[in-house]
Amino acid sequence: MSAASAIRFADRLNNVETSAIRDLFKLLGKPGIISFAGGFPDVALVDVDGIREATLAALANEPGGALQYGATEGYQPLREQLAAFMAAKGVSQLAPEQLMVTTGSQQALDLLGKTLVSPGDKVIVEGPTFLATIQCFRLYGAQLVSAPIDGEGVQVDRLEQLIVEHRPKFVYLIPTFGNPSGATLTLERRKRILELAVKYQTLIVEDDPYGDLYFGAAPPPSLLALSEQVPGSRDWLVHCGSLSKTLSAGFRLGWMIAPADLQAKAVMCKQFSDANSSTFAQATAAQYLKAGRMEGNLTRARAVYAERAQTMCDSLRAELGDAISFVQPKGGLFVWARLTGAGGRETDAKAYSLRAIDQGVAFVPGVPFYCEQPDTAALRLSFATSDVEKIREGVKRLAKAL
Amino acid sequence: MSAASAIRFADRLNNVETSAIRDLFKLLGKPGIISFAGGFPDVALVDVDGIREATLAALANEPGGALQYGATEGYQPLREQLAAFMAAKGVSQLAPEQLMVTTGSQQALDLLGKTLVSPGDKVIVEGPTFLATIQCFRLYGAQLVSAPIDGEGVQVDRLEQLIVEHRPKFVYLIPTFGNPSGATLTLERRKRILELAVKYQTLIVEDDPYGDLYFGAAPPPSLLALSEQVPGSRDWLVHCGSLSKTLSAGFRLGWMIAPADLQAKAVMCKQFSDANSSTFAQATAAQYLKAGRMEGNLTRARAVYAERAQTMCDSLRAELGDAISFVQPKGGLFVWARLTGAGGRETDAKAYSLRAIDQGVAFVPGVPFYCEQPDTAALRLSFATSDVEKIREGVKRLAKAL
Repeated sequence: MSAASAIRFADRLNNVETSAIRDLFKLLGKPGIISFAGGFPDVALVDVDGIREATLAALANEPGGALQYGATEGYQPLREQLAAFMAAKGVSQLAPEQLMVTTGSQQALDLLGKTLVSPGDKVIVEGPTFLATIQCFRLYGAQLVSAPIDGEGVQVDRLEQLIVEHRPKFVYLIPTFGNPSGATLTLERRKRILELAVKYQTLIVEDDPYGDLYFGAAPPPSLLALSEQVPGSRDWLVHCGSLSKTLSAGFRLGWMIAPADLQAKAVMCKQFSDANSSTFAQATAAQYLKAGRMEGNLTRARAVYAERAQTMCDSLRAELGDAISFVQPKGGLFVWARLTGAGGRETDAKAYSLRAIDQGVAFVPGVPFYCEQPDTAALRLSFATSDVEKIREGVKRLAKAL
Repeated sequence: MSAASAIRFADRLNNVETSAIRDLFKLLGKPGIISFAGGFPDVALVDVDGIREATLAALANEPGGALQYGATEGYQPLREQLAAFMAAKGVSQLAPEQLMVTTGSQQALDLLGKTLVSPGDKVIVEGPTFLATIQCFRLYGAQLVSAPIDGEGVQVDRLEQLIVEHRPKFVYLIPTFGNPSGATLTLERRKRILELAVKYQTLIVEDDPYGDLYFGAAPPPSLLALSEQVPGSRDWLVHCGSLSKTLSAGFRLGWMIAPADLQAKAVMCKQFSDANSSTFAQATAAQYLKAGRMEGNLTRARAVYAERAQTMCDSLRAELGDAISFVQPKGGLFVWARLTGAGGRETDAKAYSLRAIDQGVAFVPGVPFYCEQPDTAALRLSFATSDVEKIREGVKRLAKAL
């Protein structure tokens, strides 16, 4: 035993387990592999010229803001731009002061854990949900409860039963183009969830990193936008947004809109987490949004991701046929699929993922996305970072591995 | 009671209290006030031209690194530059992989709390110490114990007694140009502390945000640099560094060097805190360091801060005489002073701070910097952001208020 291994760590670390997906990512270094495993947007779609102009403008016009500590709540010009960005998506009556900037939306989740979760508290999440959410909340001692989803998002009747049974601190949802599910909650279900929030005085956390990446028609309005139609629901609603999939993941900028008392506590906690998010990144992002380049950039990205999604879904149907089932996503970065076992073929996604690596293609098996009762036949395929040729070739390899 | 106030917050929030200093900062908006209250470096000393060149180089040469998610451990070219920066300060045998990048050194403190502190665990800090450290560790349930300091830093005999008595999870020190104390630990005390670490198998956290800002001779080597002379001490040592006072606070970039198993846990926790620090800022900082402009920038900053510190100390002696006592700092941003009560004058720094505001000058009374047994006569004066004329005028106002 080395001396260093005598360090006594905090008990909370016993609640997390991160090896599952790490083992897989170690295998991705294999030369020639086509990866559908990542969760990243395609950096080739980032508007580098626009960002260069924005950072030059920030350094020229506001060096004292971009290069100094800033308010923990966020850099005011960015809060103003983000409030306007939300207003354009149907969220009216949002003052910039009601929005706090976070170091990626991951930090918003961390601050929610810190401000709300005492060890043993229940939190309801979708089954499946974003991997890092599960571990993030568990580090604060949360006991996670899984609400089942289908192609239209979380099943609201079941969610209501779980709220009644568990009285959770909050319910965490990715209502639009979910990760990993790709599913989008219907308008009708959205309204019912807002009604549940009021009825049971239960916080709903809407995480919305993908909502701008739609392929055809825009998705239903966010829970935040709809909250104006459900009296009292805004008091029980938290909305998390992100620039990582729309502008650049390199900025690590997200935001959170929460009831005033919750925001005040989250700001206090953020003060002791990282003081403030990079003002250099914030001032650059503010200039970018101010320059009006976001919409054109999004239009380009939507077209590229739409084509890749379509290619992946067409190829899966052509190459794997009834051995796999999935709901075609209308936006986002992911296809969530299930091995059906048709024709006696493989139904264990973990075993399949290892054979796929041998064939030169990678994806993430679904199990780690569940906090309980995992579906061992599920898997997540990202179409975000491969071009259509690679997608076709990768799916051929998937078929070979099956 | 509004519906929102029914939100049930986490128990850990009951451990913190942040109003003390906030109330004061609200008063700083008064027109014409000269502020010695801040803890910030002077943004006018930031090398804007160098940063502009660095960000253009980052966007031209490595847009895929600067604008995408990155490794949680940090952007490799920055880790390499920071390891070289530390090597130039006497830390040899440091591989880039032994250094993790954090979102300011504040995040390093947060990750130490998260990885090490279970509710009720003891942590020893200097009395006084950095305000945000106290609250940061308390949010994880730490019970803080205060080790007394003098003009040569923490009193080592007393520290040893406290380690024996409390068996802390770790000891947190700012050995060089402390905040708020301005004190610098002597070489002899540094070595003794490293010996205590080994003797009691107790982690020592060295926070070193100010060590590069010296006025005359360089301070003694860091605990990290000295650890090579004390066998086994490296296994019980954590070093936190920061670019906030040397390059720009706007980047929110710091780093932590810790024993391998602690770093692995901290990286895991960071994954769920903010995934990674801004790669946009990291790539820019890496280019800046690579361009070799840091040393010239530091030389300029040292000269400016040295003159301001000298002016403040001279003025305090001239204007306040024996009503105030302090040890002249040899670096950093702060003068830590005590009201002596000579001539029957005020000894309560809080009351004095309010009268000072009336006279148009602000400082921070010392009480919030203590986790226990506060010295009500102590106060912190920052000379960092006022030019010499303002410092002279501000000290005159201080004299008037006394």
